[in-house]
Amino acid sequence: MQPWSACQVGDHFDTVDTPSLILMLDAFERNLDRLMQASQGLRVRPHAKSHKCPDVAKHQIAKGAVGICCQKLSEAACFAQAGIQDILITNQIVGPKKLKHLRALAEQVNLGVLVDHPAQIVALASLMSGAKQALNVYIEVEVGGMRCGVGVEAVVPMAMAIVAATDQGLRFAGLHCYHGRAQHFRQAKERSEAIGHATGVVRQAIEQLNHAGINVPCVTGAGTGTFWHERDSGLYNEIQAGSYAFMDRDYGDNIADASDVIFENALFIKTSVMSTPRDGVAIVDAGLKASSVDAGMPATFNQPGWRYLKASDEHGVIELTPGTEAALGQSILLVPGHCDPTMNLYDEIICFRDDHVHAIWPISARGALL
Amino acid sequence: MQPWSACQVGDHFDTVDTPSLILMLDAFERNLDRLMQASQGLRVRPHAKSHKCPDVAKHQIAKGAVGICCQKLSEAACFAQAGIQDILITNQIVGPKKLKHLRALAEQVNLGVLVDHPAQIVALASLMSGAKQALNVYIEVEVGGMRCGVGVEAVVPMAMAIVAATDQGLRFAGLHCYHGRAQHFRQAKERSEAIGHATGVVRQAIEQLNHAGINVPCVTGAGTGTFWHERDSGLYNEIQAGSYAFMDRDYGDNIADASDVIFENALFIKTSVMSTPRDGVAIVDAGLKASSVDAGMPATFNQPGWRYLKASDEHGVIELTPGTEAALGQSILLVPGHCDPTMNLYDEIICFRDDHVHAIWPISARGALL
Repeated sequence: MQPWSACQVGDHFDTVDTPSLILMLDAFERNLDRLMQASQGLRVRPHAKSHKCPDVAKHQIAKGAVGICCQKLSEAACFAQAGIQDILITNQIVGPKKLKHLRALAEQVNLGVLVDHPAQIVALASLMSGAKQALNVYIEVEVGGMRCGVGVEAVVPMAMAIVAATDQGLRFAGLHCYHGRAQHFRQAKERSEAIGHATGVVRQAIEQLNHAGINVPCVTGAGTGTFWHERDSGLYNEIQAGSYAFMDRDYGDNIADASDVIFENALFIKTSVMSTPRDGVAIVDAGLKASSVDAGMPATFNQPGWRYLKASDEHGVIELTPGTEAALGQSILLVPGHCDPTMNLYDEIICFRDDHVHAIWPISARGALL
Repeated sequence: MQPWSACQVGDHFDTVDTPSLILMLDAFERNLDRLMQASQGLRVRPHAKSHKCPDVAKHQIAKGAVGICCQKLSEAACFAQAGIQDILITNQIVGPKKLKHLRALAEQVNLGVLVDHPAQIVALASLMSGAKQALNVYIEVEVGGMRCGVGVEAVVPMAMAIVAATDQGLRFAGLHCYHGRAQHFRQAKERSEAIGHATGVVRQAIEQLNHAGINVPCVTGAGTGTFWHERDSGLYNEIQAGSYAFMDRDYGDNIADASDVIFENALFIKTSVMSTPRDGVAIVDAGLKASSVDAGMPATFNQPGWRYLKASDEHGVIELTPGTEAALGQSILLVPGHCDPTMNLYDEIICFRDDHVHAIWPISARGALL
């Protein structure tokens, strides 16, 4: 924990200590509106793994989101504790300790989880027996992400197993069909083709389930980089985008075409120059513990031509445009390479409107890994 | 924050929830002993940016360390609050907000900071005027790390400026000469040559200072990958190694020669298999929010031949040796790719002895970025 705060509500932007995580509220709210509009009536269930912040989730729900997704059980518990009532954990929950907490959470909120193995269904049915409200169980289908998920051939038997456990507190809620890899294919055509493949798999799965007499209440998936393709397929009911609220350098590197829905940068790291050791270089106080580099370096925002070249743990090396100079103490805004793990480095996010601190929101589920 | 604990003191290893950060105390203590022995009487001041954990620092000091290094002012404040009395911040502190906190901290503990610009000396002298105890000011010298630090030609005038501010509460404490890049040069010869260059620079700097009648109280630097070279130069007084206490995959990838000092893996991520979607693959619950990937993927520890192939935010893809299978719920130990930013993802570290939880230490300075 920071032993002191970087600022107080009401402070001017220039006085905020660095490095700090910054949310520009006007841009953030425009992004929320833009997704609601672009969803064209599909349900929006933003992924809260991106932000881990109940205040962000509440803003998303106030704009019309039906609830949130989480990736971890403990993350979901943090949001439940903050009053979020409808949560889909887009993950498999395995192991006796986690299942005990899952049962407790399922009594508090409308909860969903994924399965991709028959043994998980058996464990969930045993867990939920006698529960007051049913647990929503989605089958995760492998649609190209090459991570978790079953092939189409396994969907009908798994759905039958879930339906057979209706009396044991399980509800067959539908299919989870998310193509994570496709979100960052750089060319618009690659993304469109990847989702073309995914929707082909989804169509087959739905047909086979319908043929077996099983209704599919919901197909959920779709991220910031592709959701308009899933939307236009006519097969998906729910959009899970997360990064759209903030944007990051990695999503910004996607090359858009006319059909793409574009969001604007709302999330930044405020950093300061702490050393000017050589011509052409400034060293800033935000390294890889301040801006995650798993998806590459952050970008400089308000200094065109300057390039964040290299991060070490607590230092960033910025290459200056020839002929320009950086001053000790000068502040620079960075666009994080990847918003999700960057949010996970901070305990709070400093929200700005009109160049002043409007609010400071706790990132309550930061570090909730269990 | 995690809404519940992964375990309690006394629990058996097998029952600890995942993903969790694990310290094997026997190996950790052997590493501490090994550095004290290999230091051959040089002062040891371990870098606490590696762990951010006061309990670890206290163990290092109990074994003979003279104090700790920190990289951030707020990090140093966390350690001071936990009772650590001698702290060198191996960084430049710039800006009025930070300077105010620096002054407060300098009244609490024996504190050192670095400078690499005359303006920093002016600001520190103005800050420390009238202080009860002096601030130790080290000149950071560029010895090959290509980050902060001045060239040899600037050392004498900067030292004179510090000495001239003796009455204003500054004490010229010596030279900070750390070659960060050299720590991870894979070949022993490359590391030895890089430190050969660094010690050449240090020698020049000392000669010029002595020629100007300025004594150099301390030369500090040297990390886990090279410190025996700095030690053998006869020029360094103090070793700043940090990762030695834990080790990680990245340091493990260094190719050693006979003169190298080797440490053992004491730090792990306990993870569980949560999906077995295809032959040859297991998906585990530790992704890049559980084990930082800035220095590459973690390594599997207790499953020879299995390879952690790819991390997404909350998933890890493990490639299995042909003919082997992973079971749902099976636990696997990972060696983090880079210990420092991995420690910074957790609120606590679970310490084991004899397969049982011996202690749970708070990582109090986690997220202390200011």
